Amino acid sequence: MTSVNWVDGRVRFIDQTRLPAEEVYVETSDPAVVEEAITSLRIRGAPAIGVAAAFAVCLVLGREHGTSYRHLSNTIYAALHSLAQTRPTAVNLFTALNRMRNAFDSLGIAEPAAVRSSMLQEALAIRDEDVEACRKIGTLGAGLIKPGSTILTHCNTGALATAGEGTAQSIITTAAREGKICKVYADETRPLFQGARLTAWELQKHGIDVTVITDSTAGYLMQKGKISAVIVGADRIAANGDIANKIGTYALAVLAHHHDVPFYVAVPTSTLDIGTPSGDAITVEERNPVEVTHVAGVRIAAEGVRVFAPAFDITPAGLITAIITEKCILAAPYEKAISALYLESHVA
Amino acid sequence: MTSVNWVDGRVRFIDQTRLPAEEVYVETSDPAVVEEAITSLRIRGAPAIGVAAAFAVCLVLGREHGTSYRHLSNTIYAALHSLAQTRPTAVNLFTALNRMRNAFDSLGIAEPAAVRSSMLQEALAIRDEDVEACRKIGTLGAGLIKPGSTILTHCNTGALATAGEGTAQSIITTAAREGKICKVYADETRPLFQGARLTAWELQKHGIDVTVITDSTAGYLMQKGKISAVIVGADRIAANGDIANKIGTYALAVLAHHHDVPFYVAVPTSTLDIGTPSGDAITVEERNPVEVTHVAGVRIAAEGVRVFAPAFDITPAGLITAIITEKCILAAPYEKAISALYLESHVA
Repeated sequence: MTSVNWVDGRVRFIDQTRLPAEEVYVETSDPAVVEEAITSLRIRGAPAIGVAAAFAVCLVLGREHGTSYRHLSNTIYAALHSLAQTRPTAVNLFTALNRMRNAFDSLGIAEPAAVRSSMLQEALAIRDEDVEACRKIGTLGAGLIKPGSTILTHCNTGALATAGEGTAQSIITTAAREGKICKVYADETRPLFQGARLTAWELQKHGIDVTVITDSTAGYLMQKGKISAVIVGADRIAANGDIANKIGTYALAVLAHHHDVPFYVAVPTSTLDIGTPSGDAITVEERNPVEVTHVAGVRIAAEGVRVFAPAFDITPAGLITAIITEKCILAAPYEKAISALYLESHVA
Repeated sequence: MTSVNWVDGRVRFIDQTRLPAEEVYVETSDPAVVEEAITSLRIRGAPAIGVAAAFAVCLVLGREHGTSYRHLSNTIYAALHSLAQTRPTAVNLFTALNRMRNAFDSLGIAEPAAVRSSMLQEALAIRDEDVEACRKIGTLGAGLIKPGSTILTHCNTGALATAGEGTAQSIITTAAREGKICKVYADETRPLFQGARLTAWELQKHGIDVTVITDSTAGYLMQKGKISAVIVGADRIAANGDIANKIGTYALAVLAHHHDVPFYVAVPTSTLDIGTPSGDAITVEERNPVEVTHVAGVRIAAEGVRVFAPAFDITPAGLITAIITEKCILAAPYEKAISALYLESHVA
């Protein structure tokens, strides 16, 4: 199962809003369909969003045969701008769009066919690097997991959220293959139930013992000493190590800290945002109140009630035991570690 | 609106599972209907359960005209036993059933009509004392609330959960009448959404500015400094001050502690359980996994996945700023304060 891919000049993705009831794949040559899919969370997960956006730019180019360079350039810039409006928090989207823009800019004036070819190459590289990053995150992170561990995770960080095996979930599946995972608790992850719907579905396919809990049950399990480690992904990591991740992550981090449970964050380096000094500077997306008031189209909440529905929250670096990337495991002080990793990546 | 009452020899209650979509009142002379209503959470909230169970015993007696004392006695004991099986955690149920048994036992051999009359008197006293306790909890607790406060609450502790104005919610509505409440955040309270469905509905009727959040958003609000105080109810308070309350309460208490936000618990003294030394000894009810996997009859979670669904969790006394009862405000050390209050109640 691949969340999003490039197949014969089209983008193919699984519609995650219909899982786990139905496995529906969409194949499209229309960039607007991909853009809508990102906005409506048919495609979700920070790395998967980045890959999908890069492919969407390729779809735009596929429609521009025989146009002038000037027109092509305008079209590409318009697409980059439009795709950047889909979701504000996951930095992988902007990282991917920046790479696509740089790929275009670095070509200079060129034939449309050459532009298409170069940019598709860049999009495929973004995908391939994510696949490889997932694999390496799994291997590196599994080294932190002790035999007989029970892991708590939040939201979905699996194959659905990436082009590869996942981030936090890649650590879980890798450690499971190494025989070190006893059990996984998956927070259901309100409001959109990515844990109950997607993580449970994926881990069951992997044959891993997974139990779904409501988000507010996590503290009770930690209190009972049932959790060996918490592993989550992130949508953006600021220069000081603060992270933005799915709403509820911060509460888990405070609870893990209170119970002396290791709290790990797993991300590809494409999620590091050296340009954002700290979590305070990260824009937290607010979602439509309907996602809280209604479930499966049925109104749950009292009619007319106000709702506050941030999609993410900010966990300060001080609550994070380690950040696992495909290159290395970062530990406090994060500012120094992240800056060193960034310099290394950009010199190499 | 009264959650449960005695009307012309019948029990009248509002079916809370159908709120807020429909306001359906059930009137019944069948004790089995009341028993089922408690089990299925049509009647819920620790004090309301106690009152309903007392009335259910009266319904049993209403069916026993002209029977022998021995038969009457057997019937009453069977009813007390059966009602005690409905839900294990809220101690008010057992407190009420004990009072009904004591009322019966203290009569000695008596005519069925005299038994009926005495026991109805006891049930009505349980109701009236709860109404009065709610009022006094509101007045005492409101004294702790500073002007301009934003309150966070969990589950439902209002008129629906009691025979009166509520416990934690009575503090909120009383403080609101005193002009001290700026805003209330209501945790939706998974899995059964008592916050989104019931608390939001009740507070809107009171004209109070209420905003529903997912349970995992509470930490984010505290981190942002938006919460002046957390106020919750409880289903049982052990002799050392540990409390059992709706799942998620413990996480809120840890978060409140982490952010130095006052964490208040409001209960009638009928919720104090001097016979239970600490939270470890409290039985935590586990609910049907369907309450987590399905919402409004629609499957949300992946097919076949395991679920862990405790209805309550245990918050240790050390995380509680104060316990507000109808008699006084208890503070640490709770063991001493609770024991003194218990002795005072039983001498007076």
